[in-house]
Amino acid sequence: MSNARVAGVGLTHFGVHPERTSRDLFAEAGLAALDDAGVDPADVEGVFYGNFMGELAESQGHQGPLAAEALGVDAPATRFESACASAGAAAREAVKNVRNGEADVLVAGGAERMNNLGTASTTEALAIAADELYEVRAGMTFPGAYALMADAYFHEFGGSREDLAAVAVKNHANALENEYAQFQREITVDEALDAPLIAEPLGLFDSCPITDGASAIVLVSEAYADEHDLDAPVAITGTGQGGDKMALQDRESLVYTPAAEAAAREAYADAGVTAAAVDVAEVHDCFTIAEVLAIESLGFVEVGEGITAASDGLTSRDGALPVNLSGGLKAKGHPVGATGTSQLAELTRILRGDHHNSPAVPDAEVAVAHNAGGTVASAVVHVLEVVE
Amino acid sequence: MSNARVAGVGLTHFGVHPERTSRDLFAEAGLAALDDAGVDPADVEGVFYGNFMGELAESQGHQGPLAAEALGVDAPATRFESACASAGAAAREAVKNVRNGEADVLVAGGAERMNNLGTASTTEALAIAADELYEVRAGMTFPGAYALMADAYFHEFGGSREDLAAVAVKNHANALENEYAQFQREITVDEALDAPLIAEPLGLFDSCPITDGASAIVLVSEAYADEHDLDAPVAITGTGQGGDKMALQDRESLVYTPAAEAAAREAYADAGVTAAAVDVAEVHDCFTIAEVLAIESLGFVEVGEGITAASDGLTSRDGALPVNLSGGLKAKGHPVGATGTSQLAELTRILRGDHHNSPAVPDAEVAVAHNAGGTVASAVVHVLEVVE
Repeated sequence: MSNARVAGVGLTHFGVHPERTSRDLFAEAGLAALDDAGVDPADVEGVFYGNFMGELAESQGHQGPLAAEALGVDAPATRFESACASAGAAAREAVKNVRNGEADVLVAGGAERMNNLGTASTTEALAIAADELYEVRAGMTFPGAYALMADAYFHEFGGSREDLAAVAVKNHANALENEYAQFQREITVDEALDAPLIAEPLGLFDSCPITDGASAIVLVSEAYADEHDLDAPVAITGTGQGGDKMALQDRESLVYTPAAEAAAREAYADAGVTAAAVDVAEVHDCFTIAEVLAIESLGFVEVGEGITAASDGLTSRDGALPVNLSGGLKAKGHPVGATGTSQLAELTRILRGDHHNSPAVPDAEVAVAHNAGGTVASAVVHVLEVVE
Repeated sequence: MSNARVAGVGLTHFGVHPERTSRDLFAEAGLAALDDAGVDPADVEGVFYGNFMGELAESQGHQGPLAAEALGVDAPATRFESACASAGAAAREAVKNVRNGEADVLVAGGAERMNNLGTASTTEALAIAADELYEVRAGMTFPGAYALMADAYFHEFGGSREDLAAVAVKNHANALENEYAQFQREITVDEALDAPLIAEPLGLFDSCPITDGASAIVLVSEAYADEHDLDAPVAITGTGQGGDKMALQDRESLVYTPAAEAAAREAYADAGVTAAAVDVAEVHDCFTIAEVLAIESLGFVEVGEGITAASDGLTSRDGALPVNLSGGLKAKGHPVGATGTSQLAELTRILRGDHHNSPAVPDAEVAVAHNAGGTVASAVVHVLEVVE
């Protein structure tokens, strides 16, 4: 089995691009990734593409062929949909295809157009990632669902809105020099606490924005990388996936995300690493509480201790384990179907040393990406390593 | 590399089930497949699930976790969407996972709920599988698109509405004893010709119906089959996928489906067989003309000769190469996201000898399934063989 190397990465600016379609956004990210890789588009054997709400936002399903067409490649393409983990799920299958010799060159990525719907309609559209019969009909949307999880966490382990605000403050600071980020501005804890509540205890700054954007990575076999003399020092050495009950009411607890735990366990075993070996991570902070749950599920801190990781500085840029150096979903933005591969793109650049925040982890060798769907009813975790 | 064995198959009745959700339908098909396989649900390591229009028909995306939950399995699940080839795309990745040792037991399947939208809205919903910018906005829906392809075919190679009607007559006859089929009744050529035109030259009986239903197969590694002493004589020995421009206007010709040709080429090479070795096939006859194009792309007949295959008896139950012994999409029905794996289920039963139409091909050893998305902008082909 050969490792799947990340030969190149590409991102669009994440933000408000109401005049651009998913195919248009994906063309920019995908061609940038191929250019970064130095790979001839004619060599691409398949496109593994994530998109979540194209049916609702663009009246466009069947986006796989459009994604291949956007790159000008004559290759089969498949669209993966696993809510906010769509691109993570796409990348996972692409990684397995490459390492098992099914293909030498694949593009994995995703795109999402969201802002054209408007905030209220987008929140309703996003809710289709929850259980329509048992959650959405009762009025549940994701801010409310994550607010329940935050409340349950506070009840079980303690913590405060200040602790959550520290997550947002950290991630905004990390995005300050990220040219692709939706928000390149610092915020303060007071600003976060004074902002309007969205669903108590979560306020405006506990929530990621609505984002248009795309991302892509080029995965190649080691044989292909060698043959074409590619500069591809980073490999995806571990992949894992987990699932959980869709509706919160059907789970044993609101304060654990076992799907992410299972995904992490599988990815670590796959890569042959432990949580202790991880130098840097991108996690799915759709809401600040989600980052807290993520770092616990990934084994970076004990259960119940994630809440103070940001306020204590553990996960900050100069902390022991920097989390979301890109700015995370909170500040970089969250174009749903593109987020998973954007994490892999950011981490690849951090490991290669050409990320604006690479200096924060100058000797980083092992990175982890955590991509979650819904209230973590699905989760995909990847381990990236510097292999040469 | 171990072959992926089809240990079990399951289908719901295909038809009008407006009171049933996709998860409900999938539970029935998936549990039937596990029961047929004699596999403990606790052994299932993943669910590869196809669904096309859940967002529009059920306000439900992120159906992967629901599919796993429906089977009562604690395993990760991913939803694949490639229009009408969704379940084929799901099965393809599942096959590769099993044969490459990534998993020993996977369920591949799909479900679709369609009738609750009503005919006009369903036709509009289906149109999101075409190019929204360049086809749908101009008024194109799939009956119109396939009518253009039929007209182009007639112009290029000749043929008549009678030839197309022969396809429908054959497929209706094949479904007569299929307890899962939407239509268990014979039709005549005259009935087909006298029926209302939908989009000239295609009439009502040239078009598949709107269908609710689900299908599933259980894929296991040879090691697992041996260890559990499973009766699983059929393997999926070849898988292939192809892609094409989404919009008809961007293609060189309307009378070829190169995505299906590429998928067939790959699947045959993968299995180490040729078209001449195929004993029986299920092809994607969403419209009668689609079956004609399919058998040409699969190499069963020369280009331009597919039009008379049904009227000449080549593809009939007692012909040299029986096609759509299940009744095909035309008579069995076409629950979009479930069709790909329903073809694999039908062919497995034919090869095992326990299908109502198995007697038509008593010594069948090699079967082919052809599943297409949109106007064949995506295509997945699988080769099934009796391996013990």
